[in-house]
Amino acid sequence: MNFSSKLLQHAVEEFGRLPGIGNKTALRLVLHLLKQSDQEVGRFTQAIDQLKEKIQYCQECYNISDEPTCEICRSIKRDKSTICVVEDTRDVMAIENTNQYQGVYHVLGGLISPMDGIGPSDLKIEGLLERMRKGEVKEVILALSATMEGDTTIFYLYRKLREFDVEVSTIARGIAFGGELEYVDEITLGRSILTRVPYERNVG
Amino acid sequence: MNFSSKLLQHAVEEFGRLPGIGNKTALRLVLHLLKQSDQEVGRFTQAIDQLKEKIQYCQECYNISDEPTCEICRSIKRDKSTICVVEDTRDVMAIENTNQYQGVYHVLGGLISPMDGIGPSDLKIEGLLERMRKGEVKEVILALSATMEGDTTIFYLYRKLREFDVEVSTIARGIAFGGELEYVDEITLGRSILTRVPYERNVG
Repeated sequence: MNFSSKLLQHAVEEFGRLPGIGNKTALRLVLHLLKQSDQEVGRFTQAIDQLKEKIQYCQECYNISDEPTCEICRSIKRDKSTICVVEDTRDVMAIENTNQYQGVYHVLGGLISPMDGIGPSDLKIEGLLERMRKGEVKEVILALSATMEGDTTIFYLYRKLREFDVEVSTIARGIAFGGELEYVDEITLGRSILTRVPYERNVG
Repeated sequence: MNFSSKLLQHAVEEFGRLPGIGNKTALRLVLHLLKQSDQEVGRFTQAIDQLKEKIQYCQECYNISDEPTCEICRSIKRDKSTICVVEDTRDVMAIENTNQYQGVYHVLGGLISPMDGIGPSDLKIEGLLERMRKGEVKEVILALSATMEGDTTIFYLYRKLREFDVEVSTIARGIAFGGELEYVDEITLGRSILTRVPYERNVG
């Protein structure tokens, strides 16, 4: 692109570094910000600076939090004997939205991915094992993506968690509710036949 | 969305104000920034703050510039007797990329759009007429979008420019190069038959 201004070019390049934002979108966003008032742009950049500066991670579950321990870990209504292991805070939000889960979480902060140079030591796995050692946990639910990285991480965690007296489960995989059979991919369909469940369980 | 942190929520809301960025995308971008180093995030917000603070508009053509007069207006290679009127700096970049235009520009900063409350006085039209009054301009090319707002602005400008001794033209409309006839919309196809040009002109 032929920029008429180095400042403009620099801002567009910075926006273009964000995932999924190409050069044209970056330019559109920057020109949008240029049209806004100084206050509005200041509010935008301050929100990011403040987040980066003041953000904390719950010392119990490593979820993003404004306080040393997050709201879920502090709540007396939550079942501390069940831990749901997730990749990041988005997954916590998604599960909370279902209103189906009353336990607590553990946020790994990523998945094992040798291709991206992410090994077990880059994730909050030691913190999870530390929670196991306290002996209060009865079940660990591994709610990770159904991808190669997710499966690798599940396998690694399963081997580590076997040492403790806890039940380890993974969330159910199969055909999504509302999904039409003919559009389901072969692997999911094949596996969902192999892992079929008695009718009574699905109704319950 | 159920945010575990007010700081996070605030940053996501600010990102979500940008055009074309929904809540989920905003969250993805903010979590990406959170994973980056302090320096990288600082560089991002500083680039925006600096742009907003130091940006200038060329006093001749109103294009975004780092100096009082932009590079194109300063260049002795450009033909100052031809002015191409465009909506914003993106159009200047697009036309410059074609390498087909040797004249100078005039950036309106928008299009007349009563629906959005944008009238002629919100655009840099007075600056354009000022340039006309100097008497050096021979041709004005109106290179505006083929939308209702573009057409409204073209009509308004045409009436204003008639008072001066200049040729006023609009960029050609028709079927795009490589466009297949059966996929062209009816209005474009119908108009392109009405405004057909002699074969020799299209070859040249």
